[in-house]
Amino acid sequence: MERPSVPKGHHLEILLKSRPKDLPKPSETFELKIVQTQKAPYPENHVLVRTLYTSVDPAMRIWMRPQASYTVPVKIGDVMKAAILGEIVGVGEGVKNVKVGDIVEGWLGWREYALVEENEVQVIKGAEAIEKKNGLGVLLGGLGMTGMTAYFGLLHVGAVNKGDVVVISAAAGATGSIACQLAKIQKCTVIGIAGGDEKCKWLKEKIGCDHAIDYKRGEEWFNEELKRVCKDGVDVYFDNVGGWILNSVLGLINMNARVVLCGAISTYNKSTPNPGPSNYINLLMKQGRMEGFIVQDFASKFGDARLTMADWMKEGKLISREQVVNGLEMAPSALLMLFSGKNTGKLIVKVADRVGRRAKH
Amino acid sequence: MERPSVPKGHHLEILLKSRPKDLPKPSETFELKIVQTQKAPYPENHVLVRTLYTSVDPAMRIWMRPQASYTVPVKIGDVMKAAILGEIVGVGEGVKNVKVGDIVEGWLGWREYALVEENEVQVIKGAEAIEKKNGLGVLLGGLGMTGMTAYFGLLHVGAVNKGDVVVISAAAGATGSIACQLAKIQKCTVIGIAGGDEKCKWLKEKIGCDHAIDYKRGEEWFNEELKRVCKDGVDVYFDNVGGWILNSVLGLINMNARVVLCGAISTYNKSTPNPGPSNYINLLMKQGRMEGFIVQDFASKFGDARLTMADWMKEGKLISREQVVNGLEMAPSALLMLFSGKNTGKLIVKVADRVGRRAKH
Repeated sequence: MERPSVPKGHHLEILLKSRPKDLPKPSETFELKIVQTQKAPYPENHVLVRTLYTSVDPAMRIWMRPQASYTVPVKIGDVMKAAILGEIVGVGEGVKNVKVGDIVEGWLGWREYALVEENEVQVIKGAEAIEKKNGLGVLLGGLGMTGMTAYFGLLHVGAVNKGDVVVISAAAGATGSIACQLAKIQKCTVIGIAGGDEKCKWLKEKIGCDHAIDYKRGEEWFNEELKRVCKDGVDVYFDNVGGWILNSVLGLINMNARVVLCGAISTYNKSTPNPGPSNYINLLMKQGRMEGFIVQDFASKFGDARLTMADWMKEGKLISREQVVNGLEMAPSALLMLFSGKNTGKLIVKVADRVGRRAKH
Repeated sequence: MERPSVPKGHHLEILLKSRPKDLPKPSETFELKIVQTQKAPYPENHVLVRTLYTSVDPAMRIWMRPQASYTVPVKIGDVMKAAILGEIVGVGEGVKNVKVGDIVEGWLGWREYALVEENEVQVIKGAEAIEKKNGLGVLLGGLGMTGMTAYFGLLHVGAVNKGDVVVISAAAGATGSIACQLAKIQKCTVIGIAGGDEKCKWLKEKIGCDHAIDYKRGEEWFNEELKRVCKDGVDVYFDNVGGWILNSVLGLINMNARVVLCGAISTYNKSTPNPGPSNYINLLMKQGRMEGFIVQDFASKFGDARLTMADWMKEGKLISREQVVNGLEMAPSALLMLFSGKNTGKLIVKVADRVGRRAKH
């Protein structure tokens, strides 16, 4: 969207204007709003946060729906919900756990500044060290919710064991590519599913997948190819897409297989229900388990997981790709890139830098 | 099927003759065979077992399929696989753990006598006491695999908690009616699904279900009624039927719901795949879990579970209904009763009594 002229002392916020039926359309679905930025003194127990980066995620499409899902829907006229990485630029009286200059994360939404209670943000420990090595963006990518989702989804919900055959869909995506690498670190055989030759090549050459299958070559070809590379069956499926691919993989599961439901991007923009996976019956036949999860349930373990993953990054075992779009006003069109498969890595929007300069596209 | 004339010193066995496409047809699917009964001396480590009761179960339909499922398929020309309750009538040299007169269980199949290695049977401890109180049939019913399936499926896989809303399909069936009562013992709100007024009445009046819903009144009515009685959502669904009922219940699950896949009787006789449950997506949205299990995985805990359940039976908290059909040759037609919903309780076939008199129909 076009950035309007924003007077000094004001900032931009992005509101949900209407609920999309299928794909969101930036100017129909969202509205840019110019808001006066709060000045000192700040209210008791409140902090002013300058957004440095904000996240763009497939799940946003779910939060735009009218019905409650795993979270309450975003209301029409409210700031669009999003994870952000920010810096504390002001504190009110009584604030105890954060100070000006701290790097924090929180669900503060698509806005350039936010005045919130201090308990709405969490300080990221060791952020400065990470900033020097990887830049701050990785904290919304490989070491952010994306990385945490891959880590806890694969290791805890999927409970992968050495030698397992692990299939991962949207494998070239933000979460998928981390999950592939974590499965390789656990010494699994890893099959990545992605759309297009280029992504598949990247999965094999850079991510270390044993096989990569291009689902865009058609369902029939895909099913044959999947059967060929999974001739010993599938122990763990990390599903980001749902739809017919989920059904195909369910058709090949081994005894006691785990299907981790992490997302269903193929279904999010449809207003009619999808057919369900008829091969769910294999869960009965093979005593398998299919389970959804929410990464926040593991929040108490994020700290340790980040340390472990940061070590793997240092050792070169784990790479994380962030694709940065500049300027908050670009967030709605960035969201659309997710559904067209155009992004290559975790999409994040750079909003401002540490000295408060706005990121321009 | 008609019992042929069986000469003295011989007995009857029922073999799988052909694989049914849809519903089995007794004389097309099965074959009666007259076999000479082994006489003493018996081979080393072998025992001769006289079948007293044999079981008739929906899962048999799966074992008749050509493809492996959770168990290898029964081969054409082999004795039909079935759980039996029998008495040891002869032992060979070297047999250590069983003696003549012991009551045993095992997967010995539809045959009047079986010569097997001793480790193919397990002695049932306390069988005589149970025989006096409830008759031996209960050991293939409420205290047999049926009861164990309800117990471990509901309490372990379903992990029911006090106050949970629990929905159980095929609730008037052998497993379902035990599961309903176990859920009531755990102080859950229990909704039973069954076909027909009479079964629903029985569920409410004798089994203690809080609600009973007749699925035969049509999908639309059913869905409205289910929504009405489950206005607080569903925490645990114990599924014996699959198909559209599974999908309806999935549409109402609460956060962290557990869907226990115990069976899918609505699908067993179909040669074309069923549509899958499109509401599986709620497992993602509500961080639910859908899981198949096999009761044999809990075999080491059967002893304790039987004791617990026998106590509940004594206290009148748990009733078990066995419907007895007399004569092994009636097993194939008894199997068909399961798929037409004609049975009222666990179907078992009485083959002989403790003194070896054949059960006549």
